[in-house]
Amino acid sequence: MDTATAVDALLADIRAELPTVRLLTDALDRESYRNDETAYLPAELPAAVALPGSTDEVAGLLRLASKHRVPVVPRGAGTGLSGGAAGIEGALTVALTRMTRILEIDRENLVVVTQPGIINADLKAAVAREGLFYPPDPASYETCSIGGNLGTNAGGLCCVKYGQTRDWVLGLEVVLADGSVIRTGGRNVKDTAGYALTHLFVGSQGTLGVITEATLRLRPLPGPRATMLAFFASLEACGTAVASIIQSGLVPVTLELMDRETIVAVDEVHRLGLDREAAAMLLVESDAPGPAAAAEMDAAEAAVMAAGATSVVRAADAQEADWLRQARRLALRALEEQGTVRMEDVGVPRARVPDLLVAIAEIAGRHGVRCATFGHAGDGNLHPNLVFSRDDPAAAGLTHLVRDEIFRVALSMGGTVTAEHGIGSSRREWLPIQRGEGAVAAMRAIKAAFAPLGILHPGRVL
Amino acid sequence: MDTATAVDALLADIRAELPTVRLLTDALDRESYRNDETAYLPAELPAAVALPGSTDEVAGLLRLASKHRVPVVPRGAGTGLSGGAAGIEGALTVALTRMTRILEIDRENLVVVTQPGIINADLKAAVAREGLFYPPDPASYETCSIGGNLGTNAGGLCCVKYGQTRDWVLGLEVVLADGSVIRTGGRNVKDTAGYALTHLFVGSQGTLGVITEATLRLRPLPGPRATMLAFFASLEACGTAVASIIQSGLVPVTLELMDRETIVAVDEVHRLGLDREAAAMLLVESDAPGPAAAAEMDAAEAAVMAAGATSVVRAADAQEADWLRQARRLALRALEEQGTVRMEDVGVPRARVPDLLVAIAEIAGRHGVRCATFGHAGDGNLHPNLVFSRDDPAAAGLTHLVRDEIFRVALSMGGTVTAEHGIGSSRREWLPIQRGEGAVAAMRAIKAAFAPLGILHPGRVL
Repeated sequence: MDTATAVDALLADIRAELPTVRLLTDALDRESYRNDETAYLPAELPAAVALPGSTDEVAGLLRLASKHRVPVVPRGAGTGLSGGAAGIEGALTVALTRMTRILEIDRENLVVVTQPGIINADLKAAVAREGLFYPPDPASYETCSIGGNLGTNAGGLCCVKYGQTRDWVLGLEVVLADGSVIRTGGRNVKDTAGYALTHLFVGSQGTLGVITEATLRLRPLPGPRATMLAFFASLEACGTAVASIIQSGLVPVTLELMDRETIVAVDEVHRLGLDREAAAMLLVESDAPGPAAAAEMDAAEAAVMAAGATSVVRAADAQEADWLRQARRLALRALEEQGTVRMEDVGVPRARVPDLLVAIAEIAGRHGVRCATFGHAGDGNLHPNLVFSRDDPAAAGLTHLVRDEIFRVALSMGGTVTAEHGIGSSRREWLPIQRGEGAVAAMRAIKAAFAPLGILHPGRVL
Repeated sequence: MDTATAVDALLADIRAELPTVRLLTDALDRESYRNDETAYLPAELPAAVALPGSTDEVAGLLRLASKHRVPVVPRGAGTGLSGGAAGIEGALTVALTRMTRILEIDRENLVVVTQPGIINADLKAAVAREGLFYPPDPASYETCSIGGNLGTNAGGLCCVKYGQTRDWVLGLEVVLADGSVIRTGGRNVKDTAGYALTHLFVGSQGTLGVITEATLRLRPLPGPRATMLAFFASLEACGTAVASIIQSGLVPVTLELMDRETIVAVDEVHRLGLDREAAAMLLVESDAPGPAAAAEMDAAEAAVMAAGATSVVRAADAQEADWLRQARRLALRALEEQGTVRMEDVGVPRARVPDLLVAIAEIAGRHGVRCATFGHAGDGNLHPNLVFSRDDPAAAGLTHLVRDEIFRVALSMGGTVTAEHGIGSSRREWLPIQRGEGAVAAMRAIKAAFAPLGILHPGRVL
């Protein structure tokens, strides 16, 4: 049976057996599911898009897709930066965007149980109304879904204090490739019964199953943040400041870096009055309780001054703090005014951040590619943003070359090609280079164990 | 070929190809490797014990064991409480006790790279000399090995603030069943390239591979702790105090509970002057920096008083703090003066701790089995200690029955049969009851993918 016939048979079965699943088959509708946020990468048009409303419907879709051997692409809000949710020709995209319900906020156990389609910011707001806090905050938190966050083990600005998405997951409900449904944990903060399936599913980008429910840890909502910007005349001085803050045992909630290219781009668009002569800027924030926040910020200020900061601005109140935070938040959008932005996501052991910054600038400069770098300095995670014109036929290829050189240098420092965005489809060939063939063979064996028919998200991650 | 012949052929190959591996074949020597710390459970005598000194030797042992289809039992220091490292007849026990070297302390990146045989306390001491801190602290930290901690995802007293062993692992070197060697990560605090193999190996109790090296996260060494004991007239009041501390956002480094049976047993042996009339006691500690520790302890004292504590003792200095901590530390040994102690390891969502305490006491009382409960109240993790006489032929069976009833009631509260000790061999039949057949089938598929010949730690966990 050829692909088109298999898809037709699958769609007929879905209409007959799962009449409440919304199906998009019109080419124009499907077009919206071709790309994630890596529109500069080639991607295919899905054969159809299904929008299930319940776990049962997801289970039914996977059972039928297995029956007809039609590949499935699980998808959240489509804000990913790895090509991980991009369409595959002849495949059914299953988008979880209708499954947005919070099932329970359990205040006593500091837990929320939610469907995966909910937007990160909506979940945060809902628990905040109960005085609770869900920390993970990808830069896209106003548009990305919790399911996508789980798929990529998303990070964000507060990882340096609170870790990544995986650190906040206690249990999952997952639909496996054959349509069976399993649960991997519950509301226990300590639980070592059997293998760490929860941890394994998080970050597997939908290649082992489709997450239909998550039990997430919460914290009591912290008070207002103390916020500071520091400017440096050299990348080295900025790197020293980061190292000194980390090694002194301070645990700021944000420790973000922007290089000069980024500072200038932001200030060009938004006129925030940033120091455009600075080689780098740090955003440091504390959410320690009560007077501890100011004390932590005093200690951080002493550390950045000792490292040679040329100026420091501390927010006097919440409004000023918001204003300082803008500088970092607006970075990507400001760069997008200059052209197409390919954002990468390398990481290195934290002490190598200054070396990586210098190397990235050298590589981009040598190839004449515009590169602005910002990122999570406290975690060793930097986002080099390669800015190019899609009208220039050579630019995409050159940008790809620069990316590969940046990957090579990050790996030579013991780093990673992706700290929080995922391998997806755009970094696949780098996985064996980073992890080794043996480790990737082990991952392949796991994937085959979970999805022996190969219909689940083929060609992604592995 | 029968088992004995296969073992003989394996030993001949080991002697020929791996002459520096220490081999124990004498029955008396092997006897020391029959049990872990669950000597009250039946266990078998290993056919031989190998003590490798390097990753290459471990790899050679597994390659040869695969060749001869001889089962392998990986073992650390033998302090486990799940029968996870107990001997298997006809199997080769591979004990990692000679691989105790710290390979590097990387102060800049707050990382230590170590072999698995090192004792937890020795690792702690070595990094403390560099001003660094490795938090996980099982009660057995002076005798348990890091490799065993990794195998069980060991917890301890400071989990409420610092989490379990898995939270401190950045990467592993693992020898797979066929003798191949893989690496699962490095020194990056954020790294989402491919599947979470590191997380999967931690807690798998040697059923997926043998860990031969670990890269662990460190923190700067915190200052001295502020320490407090609080006594309560009822379990409910004590439970309220725990809930109030957790929900108020305090993050004590220790939040330990002892019931009356435990208080009396400790005081009987050590005459610490504890309140023997109290229904329960809490040990609360803070390692917050500088004056924050006293502030956190003030807030905790207010919370326990509001919950109805009958008395509170705060340590004036480090010596007094040590003295207060003794009460909790001596608990197990004090109980062992009364008979054989079967320590269990149930967990529940934190708000259910008072309910679980009451249920445990009711079950034990109904069956006339002596039970003293202590544990990590802040994590919902309690250790009911069933004290019995091995001379009484009915006692072991009755104790087992009580354990099963406690498991059932913990699961009925959404809990777990093991929070930090592991399934091992002693809780195997409970894994499908807790996780469901589907999840266990997924675990079995993973195990088969990693060790298709079935020689790696058969009959453990799964």
